[in-house]
Amino acid sequence: MDKIFRVNMSNLTCQVEEVPEAWAGLGGRGLTSTIVAAEVPPTCHPLGPNNKLVFAPGLLSGTAAANSGRMSCGAKSPLTGTIKESNAGGTSAQQFARMGIKALIIEGQPQEDKWYNLHLTKDGATLQEEKELLGKGNFEVVDAVEARFNKKTGLITIGPAGEMKMEMANISVKDPDSKMRSHGRGGMGAVMGSKRIKFISIDDKDAPGVTVADPEKFKTAARTFAKALLDHPVSGEGLPTYGTNVLVNIINEAGGLPTRNFKEGQYKEHDKISGETMQETIAKRGGKFKHGCHAGCIIQCSQVYVDKDGKYLSSGFEYETIWGLGADCCISDLDAMAEIDNIMDDIGVDSIETAVAMGVAMEAGVLPFGDAAGIKRLLREEVAKGTPLGRIIGNGTASVGKAYGLTRIPVVKNQAIPAYDPRSIKGIGITYATSTMGADHTAGYCIATNILGVGGQVDPLKKDGQVELSRNLQIATAAVDSTGMCIFVAFPALDIPECLPALIDMINARFGISLTGDDVTDLGKSILKLERKFNTEAGFNSSHDRLPEFFNTEPVPPHNVVWDFSDEEIDEFWNF
Amino acid sequence: MDKIFRVNMSNLTCQVEEVPEAWAGLGGRGLTSTIVAAEVPPTCHPLGPNNKLVFAPGLLSGTAAANSGRMSCGAKSPLTGTIKESNAGGTSAQQFARMGIKALIIEGQPQEDKWYNLHLTKDGATLQEEKELLGKGNFEVVDAVEARFNKKTGLITIGPAGEMKMEMANISVKDPDSKMRSHGRGGMGAVMGSKRIKFISIDDKDAPGVTVADPEKFKTAARTFAKALLDHPVSGEGLPTYGTNVLVNIINEAGGLPTRNFKEGQYKEHDKISGETMQETIAKRGGKFKHGCHAGCIIQCSQVYVDKDGKYLSSGFEYETIWGLGADCCISDLDAMAEIDNIMDDIGVDSIETAVAMGVAMEAGVLPFGDAAGIKRLLREEVAKGTPLGRIIGNGTASVGKAYGLTRIPVVKNQAIPAYDPRSIKGIGITYATSTMGADHTAGYCIATNILGVGGQVDPLKKDGQVELSRNLQIATAAVDSTGMCIFVAFPALDIPECLPALIDMINARFGISLTGDDVTDLGKSILKLERKFNTEAGFNSSHDRLPEFFNTEPVPPHNVVWDFSDEEIDEFWNF
Repeated sequence: MDKIFRVNMSNLTCQVEEVPEAWAGLGGRGLTSTIVAAEVPPTCHPLGPNNKLVFAPGLLSGTAAANSGRMSCGAKSPLTGTIKESNAGGTSAQQFARMGIKALIIEGQPQEDKWYNLHLTKDGATLQEEKELLGKGNFEVVDAVEARFNKKTGLITIGPAGEMKMEMANISVKDPDSKMRSHGRGGMGAVMGSKRIKFISIDDKDAPGVTVADPEKFKTAARTFAKALLDHPVSGEGLPTYGTNVLVNIINEAGGLPTRNFKEGQYKEHDKISGETMQETIAKRGGKFKHGCHAGCIIQCSQVYVDKDGKYLSSGFEYETIWGLGADCCISDLDAMAEIDNIMDDIGVDSIETAVAMGVAMEAGVLPFGDAAGIKRLLREEVAKGTPLGRIIGNGTASVGKAYGLTRIPVVKNQAIPAYDPRSIKGIGITYATSTMGADHTAGYCIATNILGVGGQVDPLKKDGQVELSRNLQIATAAVDSTGMCIFVAFPALDIPECLPALIDMINARFGISLTGDDVTDLGKSILKLERKFNTEAGFNSSHDRLPEFFNTEPVPPHNVVWDFSDEEIDEFWNF
Repeated sequence: MDKIFRVNMSNLTCQVEEVPEAWAGLGGRGLTSTIVAAEVPPTCHPLGPNNKLVFAPGLLSGTAAANSGRMSCGAKSPLTGTIKESNAGGTSAQQFARMGIKALIIEGQPQEDKWYNLHLTKDGATLQEEKELLGKGNFEVVDAVEARFNKKTGLITIGPAGEMKMEMANISVKDPDSKMRSHGRGGMGAVMGSKRIKFISIDDKDAPGVTVADPEKFKTAARTFAKALLDHPVSGEGLPTYGTNVLVNIINEAGGLPTRNFKEGQYKEHDKISGETMQETIAKRGGKFKHGCHAGCIIQCSQVYVDKDGKYLSSGFEYETIWGLGADCCISDLDAMAEIDNIMDDIGVDSIETAVAMGVAMEAGVLPFGDAAGIKRLLREEVAKGTPLGRIIGNGTASVGKAYGLTRIPVVKNQAIPAYDPRSIKGIGITYATSTMGADHTAGYCIATNILGVGGQVDPLKKDGQVELSRNLQIATAAVDSTGMCIFVAFPALDIPECLPALIDMINARFGISLTGDDVTDLGKSILKLERKFNTEAGFNSSHDRLPEFFNTEPVPPHNVVWDFSDEEIDEFWNF
């Protein structure tokens, strides 16, 4: 039977608890948000003893279902002040699930100025004081932990940014190659830092594994599901070949590629940073495209990006990172960006928040646009060392904008707006505005239907249908985020009729239940409403569901359009 | 007839307008808040073109009424995000009133990266490009402007902090001694900086002066009013002798003197920084106690503080500044604090926000508690020069706390809590929580009745009666802030029966109207409600009317009490 692991950092105790009945049918985001909403006072300081950090694998994690290895991490976000769920690949979700850990809850705060590591086995958690690895980067932590235990030990860790409680600090999860996957957004690393846990090591020896109630039914559904993933042109072809970076040319063509801190919608050097160029470069140099962030991934949108001598530079080199450093900071050198990506993985910062913050720092004159070496220096010498400038940047985009008195600060609820301009791709603007977690493209990926023609076609330049589209996608995403599935299963789910039923069948076969499609939709709705209730109690209201003022007044080329939704139109989102 | 001077920085035009009928009966805070609420979109960026900076003298400014020379300055605050009014002494309110300037409204924002000065005469305003004085401190600006025009020229100016749009930047007003009085709180200097106006010079030559409708009635009322001010033990004796710093020993005795970033309620070195010690020191060295911030002040709570060689160190050396640098930062050297006060006046930062920010910086380990030389260095080398650390501090207390990941950050609505601990003086906590402008003792000075026995006696350690007390005082203060009167007229107004009627008689005699006491109360209520409506539309709600979490959980010695009002109890405030 699955258990709840509860670690109290105030009195340094670890307990194994039964799963409350109300939580039994939940996983991933559904579970982390439920636990946070139930146990965290919405008005608490996110870095204080009353916040809790919750990890939960998805409902299908640990099974043979393709792409089900995402781990959810939840807390009250120090960046946004809202409830937050952030999910990541890596090995930990499958380990947790096989070890019977339904959720890990870390609460309280040490009284003394000491740091700890947390070790998990199937039987429980243990805390030890940690001294050796304080201040170290994530890659050094991986090496040291593998040396202390063994190569197969799972790892969840924070870099120096998390230790310093920077609001753009992520939590890193070891992937099958001993590289890093990230709970990127919302500053979850700062929450882990506030609990004074440097890392969590996971030994899944003798894990009982996941029991599937109806193995035959599961196998059939899993096969149908996997076929749908492989058959869809986006998840079966575009993503495996070019990675998420397939989008640079597409979004540039659409005029929605935010450039020079959101001044323009097209980047003249887009070719140099495109997925096509990246794929060619990787192929020529003998790196790897088609690479998974977790075992069982069959989309394989990751890659191993190597330098011209074939030496590892980065993996999980995402479109949003490349857009942010590339178009938004006007850098056209993929190698330099890969190196920066690797530094970000090492010090443990969200690559979107960091890149957008750098774009704002460039507008502020802290460094010139296009200065890749400057970004490396800022990350290594300022952020990683916690200098004053490093702390300004380390607290993210809004922090930089405020420090330098700017007004063009692309954030919603204090979180950086990612790689799609909401003026020229209006659907995603509704998602940024209304998401329960600040600007977040993954919360309701309207790009699918606005640009990629997935799930139908809604004109990106028109307002018609966008609120409904974002609403439907946010509801679906909240449910998908609860399964342990990667968000990209949404592409076939939207277009291939057998896909979604197969996903539901897998859940039913796994637990011996009989959810319907409506049940799944209801789950998504209830998660969103639960999250919004938390936010409301934390002080948020509809006036926070707005984009920054400059999007209303500053037209973006080439379409020269502004963000033109009225407050009333945006607020329609919550009518469900 | 009074006029509105309107300066549009977007197209660099200056207009003189008739006073709209709805504004005719308003002055000071009542007028600035009315104009801001009418013309500023509540959700606008405070440093963008849609915010407006409004100056308005009080209803009685420019008359012979004692203590009526306060100027109100209003805008949407970049520090708090709320509506803001901040009033100051100096010569400008009386000049405006005599010149017939009912209000000066500065709107828009220059397109080009140029700076300006604004020159006011009775006939209108003119803009000139300003180059010479950019980056200069306020004292150099005073000298230069007096040299350009003459010694009697009025001046409203920002220091380097305002130019850099720091959120703790104040707006300085020249006083009769060519020293600085401040629109201190809420970052009004950053708004002026965002308009790119370095200073406003005022030439009141041939000003028509103020017409009084019933001079005889006015004279009689003014005499009664002045007598009340002189008869009350606080305004007639305590304040003139010891300045506002009379409070150090009193508040320390009450256990409400926040010490070491609000860790304790008493400062063991209180004697060294008390008003009594200060008065003795000034007397011995030949400085001046009994000194007014504007002509016509008969309370004279200011002073000229000199060093041991008799050289000027500071004036307007307030209790809150001395508390902040003293108890809160653990500095016991009055000379060092006076020097710091003078530096703050020169670079143009709010002495409360700065001192509390320094206390938080000390808790963060940026400098040790008690390090006066460190504060001088930070102000001169970091804040004034706009280094990254200077910008962290320059954005105030919450900015420092956030940069260093602290949880003990004494702010409400992002503004520093001043010199009275809300745990042990509970009435003032209600004011901090509910004020429309963030933590502000002057918004409803419950210290009067909790500690000084003015207006009755309400036990500071009990909750009973505090909400009602704060409500009544906030209503009265909103009205008083509209008259141009110094807030200290509240002491006799609360205790001496003739005082308030005399104040109302002066207003009636000045304008030939017949306000009653109820009308004045209604004015105060309507101002508060108008301000709150602006805040609500800007996104604030009752969940922002709260003190920081640590006040609820951390008992403060010597009484070892916490802040124990429930949300419902606090929210009772707005039931009027």
